Amino acid sequence: MNAALATLRAAVGADQVLTEGDLSAFERDWRRRWHGRALAVVRPGNSDEVAAVVRACAAHGLSIVPQGGNTGLVGGGVPDASGTQVLLSLQRLNRVRAIDTANLTLTAEAGCVLQTLQELARDHGLLLPLSLAAQGSCTLGGNLATNAGGTQVLRWGNARELCLGLEVVTAQGEIWHGLTGLRKDNTGYALRDLFIGSEGTLGIITAAVMKLAPLPAATTTALAACATLQDCVALLTRARNGLGSGLTGFEVMGRHALDLVATHFPALPRPLPGAPWAVLLEQSDHEGLAPARARFESLLSAALDAGEVFDAVIAESLAQAAGLWHVRETIPLAQAEEGANIKHDISLPVSAIANFVQHTDAALVAAYPGVRIVNFGHLGDGNLHYNVQAPAGQDDATFVATHEPAINTLVYDALQPYGGSFSAEHGIGVLKRDELVARKSPVAMALMRSIKAALDPHQRLNPGRVL
Amino acid sequence: MNAALATLRAAVGADQVLTEGDLSAFERDWRRRWHGRALAVVRPGNSDEVAAVVRACAAHGLSIVPQGGNTGLVGGGVPDASGTQVLLSLQRLNRVRAIDTANLTLTAEAGCVLQTLQELARDHGLLLPLSLAAQGSCTLGGNLATNAGGTQVLRWGNARELCLGLEVVTAQGEIWHGLTGLRKDNTGYALRDLFIGSEGTLGIITAAVMKLAPLPAATTTALAACATLQDCVALLTRARNGLGSGLTGFEVMGRHALDLVATHFPALPRPLPGAPWAVLLEQSDHEGLAPARARFESLLSAALDAGEVFDAVIAESLAQAAGLWHVRETIPLAQAEEGANIKHDISLPVSAIANFVQHTDAALVAAYPGVRIVNFGHLGDGNLHYNVQAPAGQDDATFVATHEPAINTLVYDALQPYGGSFSAEHGIGVLKRDELVARKSPVAMALMRSIKAALDPHQRLNPGRVL
Repeated sequence: MNAALATLRAAVGADQVLTEGDLSAFERDWRRRWHGRALAVVRPGNSDEVAAVVRACAAHGLSIVPQGGNTGLVGGGVPDASGTQVLLSLQRLNRVRAIDTANLTLTAEAGCVLQTLQELARDHGLLLPLSLAAQGSCTLGGNLATNAGGTQVLRWGNARELCLGLEVVTAQGEIWHGLTGLRKDNTGYALRDLFIGSEGTLGIITAAVMKLAPLPAATTTALAACATLQDCVALLTRARNGLGSGLTGFEVMGRHALDLVATHFPALPRPLPGAPWAVLLEQSDHEGLAPARARFESLLSAALDAGEVFDAVIAESLAQAAGLWHVRETIPLAQAEEGANIKHDISLPVSAIANFVQHTDAALVAAYPGVRIVNFGHLGDGNLHYNVQAPAGQDDATFVATHEPAINTLVYDALQPYGGSFSAEHGIGVLKRDELVARKSPVAMALMRSIKAALDPHQRLNPGRVL
Repeated sequence: MNAALATLRAAVGADQVLTEGDLSAFERDWRRRWHGRALAVVRPGNSDEVAAVVRACAAHGLSIVPQGGNTGLVGGGVPDASGTQVLLSLQRLNRVRAIDTANLTLTAEAGCVLQTLQELARDHGLLLPLSLAAQGSCTLGGNLATNAGGTQVLRWGNARELCLGLEVVTAQGEIWHGLTGLRKDNTGYALRDLFIGSEGTLGIITAAVMKLAPLPAATTTALAACATLQDCVALLTRARNGLGSGLTGFEVMGRHALDLVATHFPALPRPLPGAPWAVLLEQSDHEGLAPARARFESLLSAALDAGEVFDAVIAESLAQAAGLWHVRETIPLAQAEEGANIKHDISLPVSAIANFVQHTDAALVAAYPGVRIVNFGHLGDGNLHYNVQAPAGQDDATFVATHEPAINTLVYDALQPYGGSFSAEHGIGVLKRDELVARKSPVAMALMRSIKAALDPHQRLNPGRVL
C-alpha cells in the first residue's frame, strides 16, 4: 500500500493525498446511512491528474470511488468498509472554462457547485435550468453522473437532456475529449448519454458543456387546492394545453405532507388549509407579469368552473412565490423532524398515478393500520416521493427497521402493472442494487453487464455500485 | 444457403422471404448511390419474428441489414454487394400500440410511417414534434436508429430527446422490453440512448414510446431579410430572448439557394428578392393568432431598428406560411435540378457559424474559382447544409467526381478549430466511415469499438456501418 500511496502522491502532490485525520466528510454520506473507510482521499486538481490517479490505481490494483459534493441519496459516492478503495474527490476541478452567450452554452468542470453555475448564468441574463434541493453543495459532475432531476424537468428535462458534451477519464486512465457544444452531432454512438447516469461506474466525468436558455421575463406562481389526485392530473392536462411550454413547474403536495410542515415549521405560511391536495404551478413567460397573471387567472377560473380545483391563489409578489416554494421544499425536513420514514422515489405514467396511489394507499393501510403516507413530488414528470411513516404513537425507528423491506416490496410490486419505476431520479448506488437485479429484465441486466465489462473490465470504477 | 433460407421461411413464413424478382426497392438507396444484393429480403410481422430472424441468421452465420423506409442518406440501410446479407425490412411492424393522452405518449412499432403518426397525434389534439423532409415515407424505427433531426429540433430536440422507451431485438435474438413511458427513470445505464443513433449496429429497434405535446393554438411564420450571416445570428439571439420557448423554427437560406428555387420552380413565390440571407422564423403559441402576430411585429421592428434585418414579412394566412416553408423545403430539389453537387451536413456552435462560413467560402472560392456555395439549414441548431456546386458552365458530374474528396477535406478540416461536426443529422452509414476514423479521437473510437464488440461480438448487425 505504501507503494500505491507513493504513486498517488506523485500524481497529485503529497498534500492532496489524505490518509489521516477526520475524513468523515468524504467517507460518510450526508444522510449518515453509509460510513466507509478509504485507503486515501485523493484530490486531483485537473483532468490530467484525474487520469494519472486512475492509472496509478490500475497499476496497484486499487478500485476508485469518484465523489462530487457527496449529496447522493443511494450510497453511490462513499467508499466501502474495506479500507482499500481510493476516494477520488472532484471538488478541486472547479473552474468554469467558457460561457458562450450566442451558443447558449456553459463549459464547466465537474467540481463546480450547481448553484454557482446557476448564478453565473444568471449574471449573463441566462438560465441554467437544472434545479434541485442540494444545489448549494452538489456538483455538476455528480449531477451528470446520477442524471439528476429536480423541479424543472417538466419543461427542460433531466440533467442528461441539458448536457451537450463531456470530458471523461476512462477506466484505462485516458481522457475522452467530448466537450462539444453542438445541438446536432450524429457521429457514432451516444457515449455522452451512456456516461451520464452511470454513477461513476463507466468513467469519471471531469467537465461538461451544459445548455443554457434565455432568462424568462417573468415567473409567476400559483397554488391550487384539489379534492382528489385525479383532479390534479386533470389540472395538469389543462395547464399544459393552456400554457404550453410556459408551464415550467407542477408540484403536488398531499395533506399529510403539508400538515407536517405546519407542525414542525409553524412560522411558515399555510395557504389553502384543508385541501386534500395542493398543486404548485409555475409559469415562465417572455413578455412580462401582466399577461402571465392574466393567463393564470383564466386557467384557474376555468379549472374552478370545471370542478377540478376548489380554491386557488396566485402569488402577488416574488416573496410570496418564494414562500410557496419554500413550503414545498421544507417537506423533507419536516418529515425528518417527525421521525424516521421509508422513502420511495418512484415514477409512473401520469395517467396511472391516481389509480396507483388509491390502490397502494389502501393496501398499505390494510397491512399496517394507521400508517401515514406522506405523498408529494413532481407530478408533471410522474415522479412521486411516496414516503411511509409509522402510525402516530408508534416508534418510528422500530417501525422502519421492522417493516422497510416488506413495505418496499409492496410499493415496488404495485408499480409493476403500471410500468412504473422504483428509482425515478435518485439512482441505484448500493441502496437499490438488489432491486435492480430483481426488477430489471435479464436481457437489460445482460446488456448492462456486458457494457460494464467492455468499458471497465477490471472493475476499477465504483465496483459494487449499480451492478 | 438453402438451409438458411428454410430457417428464415420457418421464422416468418415463406411469403415473407423474398429472393426473386425486382428487389431494388430494398437493395438500392433512394438517392441511387448504393445498390447492393441481398441473400433475401425478409419481412417479419412482429417483434417475435424479428427475434426469430436474428436467431436464424446467427445459426447460419449470416449478417443482417435492418431497413425502415429506406430514406437514409449515408448508405446505412441497404445491403452490400456480396449477396450474403439478409435485408430485414421492418415495414410490416406498423401497428400503433397505444396513445395515452394524459401521459402525452404514443407507442408505435418501428415500421410506422412518421407522417401517419404525426396525423394520429393531431387527431388527438396533440403534436408529435419530429418533422423532416422524408416524413411521408421514413419510418419511426429508422428515425430512431439514425437519431433524426429536422426542422423542430430548436424547440424539441432530436429524435433521441423525443423518445422515452424502446423495444429492441438484440444481436443474440432476445427482446429487450424497454417500452416505458416515464419522464424520469434512473434504473441503470442509458440503453435507450445507446441504441438510438447506432444505425442498426447494436440492436434492432422494433417499437418505441414517443413524447407528444399539446398542439399549439396558433403557429405564425415570418421571413426576414438580413445582410450578413452575423445579422442572422443576432436575430436568433433576439428571437430566443423575445419568444422564449415559443420560437419553434429558425431556418436560414442563402441567396444562391433561393436563386436556384426561383430558376427551377418559377411558379413558387420569391419573397424578399435580393436578400443576401433570408431567415424563416416560426412561432408556436398557446393563446392565439393576435398576440403571436403582435409579438412577431414587435420583434421584427426592433430588429429593423437595430439594423439586423432590413426587410421582413409576416405570413397573413396559413397558406402564405405554408408557401414560405415550401420554398425552404424545395431547395434540395432545386439543387438536384441544377445538377450534381457535393453535400455537407455540418454543425457548429451558433457563435462560430458566421466566421466559419466567411473563411470557408473564401477558401473554396480561392481553390475553385467560380464555385457556387448553396448554404441553407437549421441555423437555430447550428446545422448547415453547406453544399458546393460546380462553377456555372462547368459539367457538374465531372466537377463532383474530380473534386469531392478534396472539397470534403477542406470543409471538414475547417470545422475542426470551431469544434464542428461533419455529420449533424444524417449519420455515418458507409458514406462517412472513413471520416469517422480520421476525425474522431482514438479514445472515442476505442470506446465505440468495445461497445460494439460487447453487444454484437459476432458482427451480425449491419457490419461495416458506422464502425
